[in-house]
Amino acid sequence: MFDFKELGTHDWGLTTSLMKSLYLDKELMLREVPVPRRAPGEALIKVLLAGICGTDREILKGYSAFRGIPGHEFVGRVVECDNSEWKGKRVVGEINLACGHCTWCAKGLGRHCPTRTVMGIVNRPGAFAEYVTLPEVNLRSVPDEVSDQAAVFTEPVAAACEILEQMTIAPGTRVAVIGDGRLGLLVVQVLKQAGADVTLIGRHGWKLDLAKSWGVRVISEGARELAPNSIPITVDATGSPRGLGEALRLVEPRGTVVMKSTFHGTANLDATKLVVDEVTLLGSRCGLFAPALDSLRRGRVTVESLITRTFSLNQGLEAFAYLNQNSVLKVLLDMR
Amino acid sequence: MFDFKELGTHDWGLTTSLMKSLYLDKELMLREVPVPRRAPGEALIKVLLAGICGTDREILKGYSAFRGIPGHEFVGRVVECDNSEWKGKRVVGEINLACGHCTWCAKGLGRHCPTRTVMGIVNRPGAFAEYVTLPEVNLRSVPDEVSDQAAVFTEPVAAACEILEQMTIAPGTRVAVIGDGRLGLLVVQVLKQAGADVTLIGRHGWKLDLAKSWGVRVISEGARELAPNSIPITVDATGSPRGLGEALRLVEPRGTVVMKSTFHGTANLDATKLVVDEVTLLGSRCGLFAPALDSLRRGRVTVESLITRTFSLNQGLEAFAYLNQNSVLKVLLDMR
Repeated sequence: MFDFKELGTHDWGLTTSLMKSLYLDKELMLREVPVPRRAPGEALIKVLLAGICGTDREILKGYSAFRGIPGHEFVGRVVECDNSEWKGKRVVGEINLACGHCTWCAKGLGRHCPTRTVMGIVNRPGAFAEYVTLPEVNLRSVPDEVSDQAAVFTEPVAAACEILEQMTIAPGTRVAVIGDGRLGLLVVQVLKQAGADVTLIGRHGWKLDLAKSWGVRVISEGARELAPNSIPITVDATGSPRGLGEALRLVEPRGTVVMKSTFHGTANLDATKLVVDEVTLLGSRCGLFAPALDSLRRGRVTVESLITRTFSLNQGLEAFAYLNQNSVLKVLLDMR
Repeated sequence: MFDFKELGTHDWGLTTSLMKSLYLDKELMLREVPVPRRAPGEALIKVLLAGICGTDREILKGYSAFRGIPGHEFVGRVVECDNSEWKGKRVVGEINLACGHCTWCAKGLGRHCPTRTVMGIVNRPGAFAEYVTLPEVNLRSVPDEVSDQAAVFTEPVAAACEILEQMTIAPGTRVAVIGDGRLGLLVVQVLKQAGADVTLIGRHGWKLDLAKSWGVRVISEGARELAPNSIPITVDATGSPRGLGEALRLVEPRGTVVMKSTFHGTANLDATKLVVDEVTLLGSRCGLFAPALDSLRRGRVTVESLITRTFSLNQGLEAFAYLNQNSVLKVLLDMR
């Protein structure tokens, strides 16, 4: 049943124990694979909850040519490790596995290390399984005040916080976020906490209502309440060429368009607007976990209300099918 | 011969004198039009030399839907004005005519004023004529040390300098400039003066040789000497989707791609690279004349060797035809 070759070049080692996983090989399937054996310096982690994200859906469509176990949003408990301090700890894990030696790693930017692997995305098995391994340096301890259901959002909250690592947003600055999906609803909260004057543009009444309940100004897509060229900072969180085009349409001269979502393909942008209005387009990806965990601990970001439904790992294929419906926010897999 | 309606909404007023001009109306033609009458606060300027730039060629292809007299690179002499101090002065002119009252103008960014006109580009007659008018606030006096042939480069040198207004480039930073045309050859000089470690990538041996004579490292396009994802700052000065793609290919994670050239259409960019590598794309357009004139006065930028040929205004159509040949740098029109 288990074909070692298909797992790529990673040295899993083999144990006698098997575990359940969601496995992508041309298509996604439920598969039993050996429980991974941790390398020195790594921890073996029992996955408690994992979240499905837009990138996972892009991966299923061919993004990053990934084969193996996807999944990079998780909370788990350490069952084996070198450093005994981690044993039994509830943890989340930074998803980029960096070399630790290159100039990027030296700058603290291991998430741009050119030889990195990325859990569940690039050459490294992910968290849609009963167990996963990660280097101990990637682990972050989850504070007791943060529930499993909140901790599983650490990675996407960190991605939202990344915008603030990349640019300064003065208090009161007008920001328009395009896209009322999972990521957009985190971005509006993080930017609002940072003091920005945030408007969310989306197409789903109930998602917009959720944002409104947090005090965020919302606009239905197509309402065109905002004038073109009028907003200093716009964020595309739709992960679609359409959303990016709207973000560019709204941004003012010398303003910044943040590309917060991955999509697999070509961004078609109005070259004249970019140059004549001297717009800055800023790609934005993974963020640091520490500020994200801190936001979750202080309750500055509401995440549990974003959970639409939780499936067991056995129901994993059903979970992906469910996610392809329109009116869904976060879908979790529960391995507890 | 002169059809007032075709000149658009600008209130030229009419004088009895006529002047020669290059006039765009569906196609470019040589046309006699009335010498423009200056409005209060404006100066009437006898054009001495004018330069043809890539934007002019885009305008002929339909960019900005311009009709009238194109031309925005010029040096001239003031013949009429309100403030007598300008009378007889040799001048260049900032090309954006701003309202002076809006928030952009208040920030000193009149070149982004939303109601601006732009000489020879947006709703304002340009300099491919014997005379042109401009507000006195747009004029800059040309120092005696700067020849007509150098002064006519003030606008493109300012555009090259604009990069340094928009971003900080630490001394020794590696920069790759794509495109060995007029603008690219100015950009490499300005960035080299600023202390950057500049490489020019181009496809014309003799243009690359010129840059080499200034001590710039050069690479023939296609030689692929530079590794992908290896350069902190890349500049597209080709004004083509191809050049922009190459600039994005070369830029390193967290690096900046400067879009220094206008092109009329859609920029097709690798969305994954932009987001995953957190690239900044920076549109860059017009710059301030003061630092450009200063660079020319100090001889920090070599411009006269970029002049391939000078035509009379009567030969204006021939000049554009000549420019469409491959091996041309700057082509001037001489109205002296």
